[in-house]
Amino acid sequence: MAKETGFLKQVAVLDKGFVQLVDVMGSDQRVVDAARVSTGSKADPERDKKLIFYLMENLHETPFEKIVFEFNVKCPLFVARQWQRHRIGSFNERSARYRVFDLDYYVPGLDVLPDVYSPEDVQAYVKALKQSYKLYESMIAKVAEQPKSRSRAREVFRGLLGVAYYTEFFWTVNFRSLMNFLKLRLAQDAQYEIRAYAEAIHALVPEHIPWTYEAFETFVLKQSPKIESDD
Amino acid sequence: MAKETGFLKQVAVLDKGFVQLVDVMGSDQRVVDAARVSTGSKADPERDKKLIFYLMENLHETPFEKIVFEFNVKCPLFVARQWQRHRIGSFNERSARYRVFDLDYYVPGLDVLPDVYSPEDVQAYVKALKQSYKLYESMIAKVAEQPKSRSRAREVFRGLLGVAYYTEFFWTVNFRSLMNFLKLRLAQDAQYEIRAYAEAIHALVPEHIPWTYEAFETFVLKQSPKIESDD
Amino acid sequence: MAKETGFLKQVAVLDKGFVQLVDVMGSDQRVVDAARVSTGSKADPERDKKLIFYLMENLHETPFEKIVFEFNVKCPLFVARQWQRHRIGSFNERSARYRVFDLDYYVPGLDVLPDVYSPEDVQAYVKALKQSYKLYESMIAKVAEQPKSRSRAREVFRGLLGVAYYTEFFWTVNFRSLMNFLKLRLAQDAQYEIRAYAEAIHALVPEHIPWTYEAFETFVLKQSPKIESDD
Amino acid sequence: MAKETGFLKQVAVLDKGFVQLVDVMGSDQRVVDAARVSTGSKADPERDKKLIFYLMENLHETPFEKIVFEFNVKCPLFVARQWQRHRIGSFNERSARYRVFDLDYYVPGLDVLPDVYSPEDVQAYVKALKQSYKLYESMIAKVAEQPKSRSRAREVFRGLLGVAYYTEFFWTVNFRSLMNFLKLRLAQDAQYEIRAYAEAIHALVPEHIPWTYEAFETFVLKQSPKIESDD
Repeated sequence: MAKETGFLKQVAVLDKGFVQLVDVMGSDQRVVDAARVSTGSKADPERDKKLIFYLMENLHETPFEKIVFEFNVKCPLFVARQWQRHRIGSFNERSARYRVFDLDYYVPGLDVLPDVYSPEDVQAYVKALKQSYKLYESMIAKVAEQPKSRSRAREVFRGLLGVAYYTEFFWTVNFRSLMNFLKLRLAQDAQYEIRAYAEAIHALVPEHIPWTYEAFETFVLKQSPKIESDD
Repeated sequence: MAKETGFLKQVAVLDKGFVQLVDVMGSDQRVVDAARVSTGSKADPERDKKLIFYLMENLHETPFEKIVFEFNVKCPLFVARQWQRHRIGSFNERSARYRVFDLDYYVPGLDVLPDVYSPEDVQAYVKALKQSYKLYESMIAKVAEQPKSRSRAREVFRGLLGVAYYTEFFWTVNFRSLMNFLKLRLAQDAQYEIRAYAEAIHALVPEHIPWTYEAFETFVLKQSPKIESDD
Repeated sequence: MAKETGFLKQVAVLDKGFVQLVDVMGSDQRVVDAARVSTGSKADPERDKKLIFYLMENLHETPFEKIVFEFNVKCPLFVARQWQRHRIGSFNERSARYRVFDLDYYVPGLDVLPDVYSPEDVQAYVKALKQSYKLYESMIAKVAEQPKSRSRAREVFRGLLGVAYYTEFFWTVNFRSLMNFLKLRLAQDAQYEIRAYAEAIHALVPEHIPWTYEAFETFVLKQSPKIESDD
Repeated sequence: MAKETGFLKQVAVLDKGFVQLVDVMGSDQRVVDAARVSTGSKADPERDKKLIFYLMENLHETPFEKIVFEFNVKCPLFVARQWQRHRIGSFNERSARYRVFDLDYYVPGLDVLPDVYSPEDVQAYVKALKQSYKLYESMIAKVAEQPKSRSRAREVFRGLLGVAYYTEFFWTVNFRSLMNFLKLRLAQDAQYEIRAYAEAIHALVPEHIPWTYEAFETFVLKQSPKIESDD
């Protein structure tokens, strides 16, 4: 499921989406160094790991802001909307004003739908998304020769496209803020689709910060009461 | 265009949207007081106004964070997406997981579309949005008797609904951050639809902070080079 | 301990400091309204209170950003430094570049010092703070007639003044961010002096948001493990 | 003035301070990539550079959040206080609760003081800072054998130490926020001491992001009106 491209890894998510880890800044060692500005002492690996666990358990969270990740994400628009409610971090998203949407939308598998739905229902859903796209495309075609109107057509007629359509963005986020994302989006009652993205991140991140991630799992993920997200 | 409800005012925007000013905290006087913590001096109205103009001209922006507005906004999803890229502020949006969308979408007037489009094109656009909604509705109807599945149906099948559909949210924002929003979204090349919302705010706000707003117009709005926004 | 000035209340803290509540925006009702944008339903008081408790217990925190407080604070510089590590909020502080410091410093009572210290030790501390001030004052006096140099003298020679000296600032903060401040600064191992300010806020705030504050005490303050702050 | 330690460079600032560049994430290329998520096109170096200049000139600032720097800074407390007013970024500072301050304070040269001051004035300043330290040290010595009281002594008696004393911190900041810092702190009317730190950063950063920095100088630094900072 994960394929490497140089030091980068990409994990497929849902039917056509992905999460790719583009870059990492910082490390377990950097967390320790940041915390030690406060104490000035040096220590052996065992004490370093203990310090990280101590920081996590006692909510000393700023040292975890020293770790920064850059992800490239492809996901349905409705997932992007939930994602972008997390304000501490930076998003750069493909613009539907400057670029025509692809015929590329999310189709939920029958296994993630209530039993009542049949393959015919999913076909009807796909057909509707295709029809909207056909109209969107034909509207844009009418101004193909007029650069100024083209941009206006794209920005208005995207209104036809359902929030199941895929978008793509870059996300820069420090680990303190990422912990908050994971805590909420890995929770049982997070929507299945965004949980799938949270799980991809949960698979990509630990190797870069093994002690920090172990501490996060021990003191945050395993302690969380039933948590709900609001979108 | 603006109707009062108590101290509140609401301005209609686009075909079915609005901006309502729900609450205001702070004032011109509060800006002056905040700046004077630094200087400790007291002054007459003329000097107070001069101080506000001085702060604005010289980019002393923190005193303007003392002014906080609360708005209630109804706008198309694609406008909400642009809006929520402004991260310094607080959004509470109606959730499509907990509540069924209304058959309520934005229809652009012919006057805001390139000349090439005819009334028939707009009718085709409306028809497509209605059809998607019909399917969305019928999908949700299938689980009307099953509370658990109902929520899952709502969160998946909203994928059918175009970003022209209306949503509603509350927005809390301080005036420093609001200036940034207005500077970008009142600009010539902002998308017409979000500019209409920026203009509604531009109409609602000045009476509450007359000197501050005059200073903002003088030193920021009138000085702005051609500014572009990125979504 | 609390004296009213109009709707404002001020609580004395330490030997010469205070916290004054300058303004409040929002209420329990506003939290409910913000959360209900999501659900659209109306309810009776009992259900409203239940909703607030539900939001707090399940970490739906954005509705609490609808409540905004404005405080005026006088505290020692070392307390202000700890305070201003809380980045989500807005500070306007009296500037020592534009204004001469007063001979006004914090003197810890013997009851908040380890037993080993005698009244003579406190006298020595006071004497040292006074002497530094005397030198600061004489340095500034040398440029009393030269406006340009006066500002330079103030900004450099404040270097003599200990972090026990009092400063004053305005603080605008939403309740979500304030909860984080209180959770960390009311904790057993917070420094005594900043805890005294947290307790003043803990006394001033509840009457304005009784249900929200009760929920905060129930689900956050009483549940907190031993928490440590880092400065 | 700049000495390399591995890939790291350190620049001496004031009499005993420094700025060290600890790590960099992102590059000119990453800015281009982030902006191109929007446009999907590929280009040659000349067009890439043009794109960066276009983004800077037109205030498309989010792509510059892809560049993140980590600095280690040693500066006087009064500089740290000004610095930490910049809230978008992350600070980890040496704690005076957990560690005894060194006898290490800033002494302004006569060349950066108004003419009226003599070498004797500077000697008096140094003498006063030393005397406060002596008292601080003796207060802490009284509890040398009592671990619990030691921490309390450190946190209270630091009150004696002037804001000329040096502190040390790590700072993680993205380039968008760093531009704001540089714009305000390189300005003519910024305090001399923090301007010296801003100039050190101005010397360290450009080689890592040559096009971006050139664009910043062209469209922001050279265009800035007289700018004032407020602390």
